[in-house]
Amino acid sequence: MPSSLLALLDASAQRPLAPVPLERPVAVDAVPTPALLVDRPAMERNLARMVEHLARTGTGLRPHAKMHKAPVVARRQLELGAIGICCAKVSEAEVMRAAGIERILITSPVASADKMARVAALAARSEDVRIVVDDAGAVRGLADAAEHAGTRLKVLVDLDPRMGRTGIALGQPALELVRVIADLPALEFSGLQQYAGHIMHLPDAAERRRRARDIAAAGLETRDLIIADGHPVEVFTGGGTGTFDMDCEEPGITDIQAGSYVFMDEEYGAIAQGNRSRFEFFEPALFVLVTAISRPRAGTITVDGGYKSFASDTVAPVACDLPGLRYHFAGDEHGVLQFLEGAPEVALGDRIRMVTPHCDPTINLHDWMLPVEADGMVHELWPISARGCSW
Amino acid sequence: MPSSLLALLDASAQRPLAPVPLERPVAVDAVPTPALLVDRPAMERNLARMVEHLARTGTGLRPHAKMHKAPVVARRQLELGAIGICCAKVSEAEVMRAAGIERILITSPVASADKMARVAALAARSEDVRIVVDDAGAVRGLADAAEHAGTRLKVLVDLDPRMGRTGIALGQPALELVRVIADLPALEFSGLQQYAGHIMHLPDAAERRRRARDIAAAGLETRDLIIADGHPVEVFTGGGTGTFDMDCEEPGITDIQAGSYVFMDEEYGAIAQGNRSRFEFFEPALFVLVTAISRPRAGTITVDGGYKSFASDTVAPVACDLPGLRYHFAGDEHGVLQFLEGAPEVALGDRIRMVTPHCDPTINLHDWMLPVEADGMVHELWPISARGCSW
Repeated sequence: MPSSLLALLDASAQRPLAPVPLERPVAVDAVPTPALLVDRPAMERNLARMVEHLARTGTGLRPHAKMHKAPVVARRQLELGAIGICCAKVSEAEVMRAAGIERILITSPVASADKMARVAALAARSEDVRIVVDDAGAVRGLADAAEHAGTRLKVLVDLDPRMGRTGIALGQPALELVRVIADLPALEFSGLQQYAGHIMHLPDAAERRRRARDIAAAGLETRDLIIADGHPVEVFTGGGTGTFDMDCEEPGITDIQAGSYVFMDEEYGAIAQGNRSRFEFFEPALFVLVTAISRPRAGTITVDGGYKSFASDTVAPVACDLPGLRYHFAGDEHGVLQFLEGAPEVALGDRIRMVTPHCDPTINLHDWMLPVEADGMVHELWPISARGCSW
Repeated sequence: MPSSLLALLDASAQRPLAPVPLERPVAVDAVPTPALLVDRPAMERNLARMVEHLARTGTGLRPHAKMHKAPVVARRQLELGAIGICCAKVSEAEVMRAAGIERILITSPVASADKMARVAALAARSEDVRIVVDDAGAVRGLADAAEHAGTRLKVLVDLDPRMGRTGIALGQPALELVRVIADLPALEFSGLQQYAGHIMHLPDAAERRRRARDIAAAGLETRDLIIADGHPVEVFTGGGTGTFDMDCEEPGITDIQAGSYVFMDEEYGAIAQGNRSRFEFFEPALFVLVTAISRPRAGTITVDGGYKSFASDTVAPVACDLPGLRYHFAGDEHGVLQFLEGAPEVALGDRIRMVTPHCDPTINLHDWMLPVEADGMVHELWPISARGCSW
């Protein structure tokens, strides 16, 4: 049956949005590999630690769902007090909305009429869907779209902390954009976003803290300029897993957009929290389970996960349970584990848990998460319902 | 309704296996971005060129479906005379079989009982499913699985051309493995595989030719040793888009496993074919269409595709229609185009076609291919049915 393009692309129509129970629990040793495992108790501890930490300063949590793309995780974050979630793209927000989530901030600007129409339609059928803007033309386009959808759309101005990815320059340019918004009845100016992705992975905690403070101060100065011009700033949102503990100490920052803290990855494990590794605060809770399948060369063994199982934009995956093994990518479907001094024996058929290099694009390769409960069993599958929703 | 793990993971039960027609054709300017476009006429020219080239030497084509993961492309290859297809993983082969494809070689060894049982079950219900082996223990496990499934399983011995990924050593070790197979009534020794992935991207054609010849000669020497021991070698399969024109000139090589030639990518475009670029033989036929969405810094513009739209294991995507723009990854969802001297104007909302860096893992990020016909319109969507099937 022929159908429209958007209806066909709509992932929420094709994929489950809630956990799917297994008829019988499956031991983790019996799942086919490569498999994306969640250590459920560790995930719960990470969720609780972030909530506890932010409660001290009263800072809100608006976790980024681009990391997990799984409504089941987003719902758990909201149950624990998150004030809403972030989505990177319109299609991702559409899936989360289809799963019943009503409070969504889209953190990336859009610049074409088709996307603007979808944002306005989404806002019209939701309690609180907002989007960031950084350009006067896009602001006018969104106002037209909102008017057409019969809704008033909340927009945040995206500030560029001199990272050069998205956002408008601090100070007068940001203020001018707020004025454009304020003149458009179909839009409501609801605040500012400032995300400093370029400092999230600075390894040294003191250096990261200094940079985070400077960036926050500059953003809050622009906020004050806007308030002085007569525009209330309800929200000042930003921060991530690399700076949540610094940003929450800035009284002007209303909420933190961290994503990776739920599962962690090698990139974030490598940064310091004070004098410790960040892994001592948030635990690795996401793993790719691989199997040793070939041993063509002495001192190495080949496993069944490569570029199609692990993100390859940064560091390599790490065999966390077996120190002495070093992973090297060996194409789309394979990795080669090199045995360093003191490495344990690994036999063909052995299964090895790998901490993921960069959790967001690793999860985006898989269709399901397999949550492993405290009993070592998988009782249900978690659909990564917004996988591939980058459009 | 609770279900079994394998039934839930089965992609063929959840995704379309055939093209899905659109109710109305859509102009390429109207599709939401990022979108994975196929230049359909260019793809057809690439398919025909490979068939014509191999016809001169009578070498068979057994194209690798791990590249496209789309049954619609595999069927087109078979229509044009391919003797079968290759799959990298069991789950990928299961999807192709569900789409009606009966002649499949699984090119990666398996080492666990669950995978062996699935291979045997797949072979039992197919005309011709084969798998490679490189270990005597796995050979015995596959024989048990085949016996249990009531089938006789054809296996190829995977030879390691000193690449160190999978395969057994040339010469006596390979011969010993053939003898193990020959003693097991549930298995049929059907030949050899030798894939030299490590030379596919050598830029210099003469150097690549020399290496390909040496590797073929060594593999064929092992073949002769096996024949002399009384074991017929029906198949000697290998080669790829980097060496198809060299390998097909070796009389002992029966078929070529090339995959990327259908769509091409920047990695393969960068290698020479004789004195020319390989792009002068096979054309780029796969693109990711992105939209310019932000302009935070002079001399650059930000587009809506990053690590979740493009493979990031090798080179960067290339704005093929707009020379003077250089792409830099800017996170999961963004790229920054830098304007070099002579670069054209790009406005917010403009759409830009990018040649993909590495086609296989790029396709594996997307759910659909949008084939653009000669009229510039998309008439149907092609499901990437085996996307994510690495298990």
